Amino acid sequence: MKIYDRSGFPNPARIRIVLAEKSLDSKVEFVSIDLIGAEHKQKSFLAKNPSGVLPVLELDDGTFISESTAITEYLDNVDGNPTLTGRTPREKAMVHMMQRRAEADLLDAVGNYFHNATPGLGPILQAYKNPEWADRAAWGEQQRDKALAGIKYFDEVLKSSPYVAGSTFSMADITVFAGLLFADAAGLEIQGDYAALKAWRAKVSVLPSVVNRSGQTFEPQDLKRMGF
Amino acid sequence: MKIYDRSGFPNPARIRIVLAEKSLDSKVEFVSIDLIGAEHKQKSFLAKNPSGVLPVLELDDGTFISESTAITEYLDNVDGNPTLTGRTPREKAMVHMMQRRAEADLLDAVGNYFHNATPGLGPILQAYKNPEWADRAAWGEQQRDKALAGIKYFDEVLKSSPYVAGSTFSMADITVFAGLLFADAAGLEIQGDYAALKAWRAKVSVLPSVVNRSGQTFEPQDLKRMGF
Repeated sequence: MKIYDRSGFPNPARIRIVLAEKSLDSKVEFVSIDLIGAEHKQKSFLAKNPSGVLPVLELDDGTFISESTAITEYLDNVDGNPTLTGRTPREKAMVHMMQRRAEADLLDAVGNYFHNATPGLGPILQAYKNPEWADRAAWGEQQRDKALAGIKYFDEVLKSSPYVAGSTFSMADITVFAGLLFADAAGLEIQGDYAALKAWRAKVSVLPSVVNRSGQTFEPQDLKRMGF
Repeated sequence: MKIYDRSGFPNPARIRIVLAEKSLDSKVEFVSIDLIGAEHKQKSFLAKNPSGVLPVLELDDGTFISESTAITEYLDNVDGNPTLTGRTPREKAMVHMMQRRAEADLLDAVGNYFHNATPGLGPILQAYKNPEWADRAAWGEQQRDKALAGIKYFDEVLKSSPYVAGSTFSMADITVFAGLLFADAAGLEIQGDYAALKAWRAKVSVLPSVVNRSGQTFEPQDLKRMGF
């Protein structure tokens, strides 16, 4: 298997945590994509993932899998013991419900805010996005508010649940964790104490699969310069 | 089990097709939500689904599952034979990859266009959305273009694949099918022939699980009046 990604970015970090959780790190060849050179927007990469985003998993039969949920489903099920995506129908449902919320209401909302309503985009994205900049900025502000509401929601959830989707660490925890990392990098100002969320974050950040993959390498200016 | 929904709307239609595919129709009690009275935005419903959208599945133990992907995971796995969400790791990955694309690039994009860039919103939504109407309209137009690009993409996929995620009918087909129904209702003008997509749609529309659940009851004015 190959993983096309770039270390230090939110979605690649999600899959690196999954690989570590499933002890699959050593079975994967990592291929680093040159984000500065916009390699992910060129034809050869778009043939692997028409959406032009990282990461992408290439199976040994040449199949390309993109989208973090889909890659996680594959990696989590190869050993027949899907600890991260749910073993029972009820677990699977809870994980996918919270995964969708973690993406739409946190990680993707932070990304939309970051790309559209914060200054300092690199020259490539700037050129691409300028024409509708004012509209996009207003929408980006709404996405920031959505992300802040998402953070409040997950704090509520974690007041009565040890992990985001129930009693065990799952794909949804990884997504919320990556969303908070991205929120930090994007300079999102979080109002409120959110003690439950903070305690959960402290607990998750020291898990063996997470501790060296917590994304401390990505800085806002790097993300922007690379057009992430 | 209970399903809280309203017949004739895109996301409820998805789950009704799933229930029919899995022969679970008779095991479910349908509870109709009064969308005209904005019941889905009231406290009692928000306790079931804080996102305030339909459908919601209530399990016999009182657990509430929302988000169509999550509900489908549950219903598809209860018999131990997940035909709609994939039986092997590779199938699961393909279904979830195409499901995400079908939602982001088609169904959700059509919904965003419909809600933000077409006239005739009902009084409840109008009041809610007016303050940033101009910004939202510009964004809605971009979402229409995204949906049109999504339609072109799925036509390409279906040139070389009998179904959206491979050789069998899956959750991703249901989502694309609902997306096209919603596109019709939203008055989205599709440029291009898209013969592969049309042939696939004709084939899917006569499946026993789909034929009476193809959403022909929802009309644009009804959707808007109900604040969908």
